[in-house]
Amino acid sequence: MGETIQSVERAAAILRLLASGSRQLGVAELATAMGLPKGTLHGILRTLVHVGFVEQDRASGKYRLGATLLALGGSYLDLNELRARSLNWADGLAGRSRESVWIGTLHEGQVLVIHHVFRPDNSMQVLQVGAHLPAHATALGKVLLASDPYTDPARPLAACTPRTLTEAAALEAELDLVRTQGWACDLEELEEGEVSIAAPIKDHGVVVGAIGIRGAIERLTADGDPQMELVSYVRDAARAISRDLAR
Amino acid sequence: MGETIQSVERAAAILRLLASGSRQLGVAELATAMGLPKGTLHGILRTLVHVGFVEQDRASGKYRLGATLLALGGSYLDLNELRARSLNWADGLAGRSRESVWIGTLHEGQVLVIHHVFRPDNSMQVLQVGAHLPAHATALGKVLLASDPYTDPARPLAACTPRTLTEAAALEAELDLVRTQGWACDLEELEEGEVSIAAPIKDHGVVVGAIGIRGAIERLTADGDPQMELVSYVRDAARAISRDLAR
Repeated sequence: MGETIQSVERAAAILRLLASGSRQLGVAELATAMGLPKGTLHGILRTLVHVGFVEQDRASGKYRLGATLLALGGSYLDLNELRARSLNWADGLAGRSRESVWIGTLHEGQVLVIHHVFRPDNSMQVLQVGAHLPAHATALGKVLLASDPYTDPARPLAACTPRTLTEAAALEAELDLVRTQGWACDLEELEEGEVSIAAPIKDHGVVVGAIGIRGAIERLTADGDPQMELVSYVRDAARAISRDLAR
Repeated sequence: MGETIQSVERAAAILRLLASGSRQLGVAELATAMGLPKGTLHGILRTLVHVGFVEQDRASGKYRLGATLLALGGSYLDLNELRARSLNWADGLAGRSRESVWIGTLHEGQVLVIHHVFRPDNSMQVLQVGAHLPAHATALGKVLLASDPYTDPARPLAACTPRTLTEAAALEAELDLVRTQGWACDLEELEEGEVSIAAPIKDHGVVVGAIGIRGAIERLTADGDPQMELVSYVRDAARAISRDLAR
C-alpha cells in the first residue's frame, strides 16, 4: 500500500470540513475540529487559497470553498464515461415517462447524482447534480446498495418520512427483493407525495450506476404499487445504457 | 506571505492535469507533464485516491478525477451566497424574458457558470453549471472584465466565430462602452445565431458576478441591435440581486 502524504490528507480534511458546514470557518475553528495546532493549518490553508481550492473572506478572514472546486466538479462530469453514455438515453426516458430522470452512483454510502433531466413541462425544478441523496430512502440507492458488497446495514438509517425503512432487517429484506426483481422503488420514503423507480446500469455485468425516474405518487403508482409500464421504461433505459457500456 | 506546502501544490497540479485532459493519465504521463520523478508522484496519487479526489482505473491502472470533487463542487454551489440570493430572481428573469438565464463569476480569466435556468419551453437543453465560457466572447464575461482591475487584454483572444472580438484594442473599446452603459451584449461572438445580454451584480458597489440571458438572434435583437426591453429586464434583475446582497 505504501504511505500517504500527511499534508495532502489534511488539505482534503479541511475541504471536507468547509463543505459540511453551513458557513465559513476560521482557522481556530478548523484547528479545533481537526485537533491540530493553528500554525500547522496556516501553511495548508495558505496553499489551498493559492491554488484556488479555498477562498478567504476579506472582511472576516474566514475560509470557504473556492471556485476551482466547482470547475473540477464540472470536469469530473465532462469526463465521466457513464454520464456521457447515458445522456441521450436519459433524455429519451424523460420524454417517454414525462417525469424527471436521475442517474446516480454510490459515493461514501450515499447516492451521488451525476445527471438530472428535468420533467418535460414548464414547472420550476431545482437541479440536483452533485447532490447526495440517502441511499436507503431512494430507488437509485436501493439498486446501488443491492449490488454493493460493502454495504453495512448496521449504520443508522435516518427517517426522512414516516415510510422510510429505518430498520436494518427491513432494508435487507427490501434489497433481497431488489436483487430478485432487478429494479427498486421508493414509495414516499424520501419525500411525502413522491415516488421513485430505478434500475441498475451494468458495465460488463458489474453495477456501475443506476437510472431512475421520480415524481408524484398520483402519476407513478396505481393502487399503491408502481405503474409497471413506467417500470418497464426505466428498465429499458438501464439495459440500453448497459449495452452501450459493454461495446 | 509565508511558504506554501509543496506536496499540496503538487496534488492540486495533478488534479488540474487530470481535469484538462480528455482521458485518463498514467503515472508516467503525469511525471513527464510535471517534470517530477515517478516515485514522487506515487505517494501523492496514493493519497489522492485514498481521499477520493482521484480514481484509479482497475483495468489500465491509469488515473482520473474522483467523485468527491463533484460532491465538493456541489457544496461550493450550496454555500455560494451570490447563487443563493440569485435563484428566485433568475427564475423571474427566465419567466419574463422567455430565455435561458445564466449567472457567472470570473475565475482564472474565464466565466465560471454558477447558475443556469433553462429557457421555459420543452426544448432539450444541456446544463452548463460548472462550465467555463470565454470571457471576451460573452456578455457575462464582458461585464466581469469591465470591472476587473486585473484584466490582461494582451492574452490571446480566441476566435469562437467570425464575429468574436480578437483584437485587444477592440475588446478594450467594447469594455469602455460596457462601463459607460452598464450592460453588455455579445452578438454571435460565441455561437453563430446566438446573442447574450448581461448586467453586473454588485455587493456594496463591488461587482461580484453577472446575470444575463442567451438565445436566438431572431428573438433577442431588432435591426441588429439588442432588444432594449430585454436589456431592461436583465438590468432589473441585476439591480434586484445587488439590493438583496447589500442588505
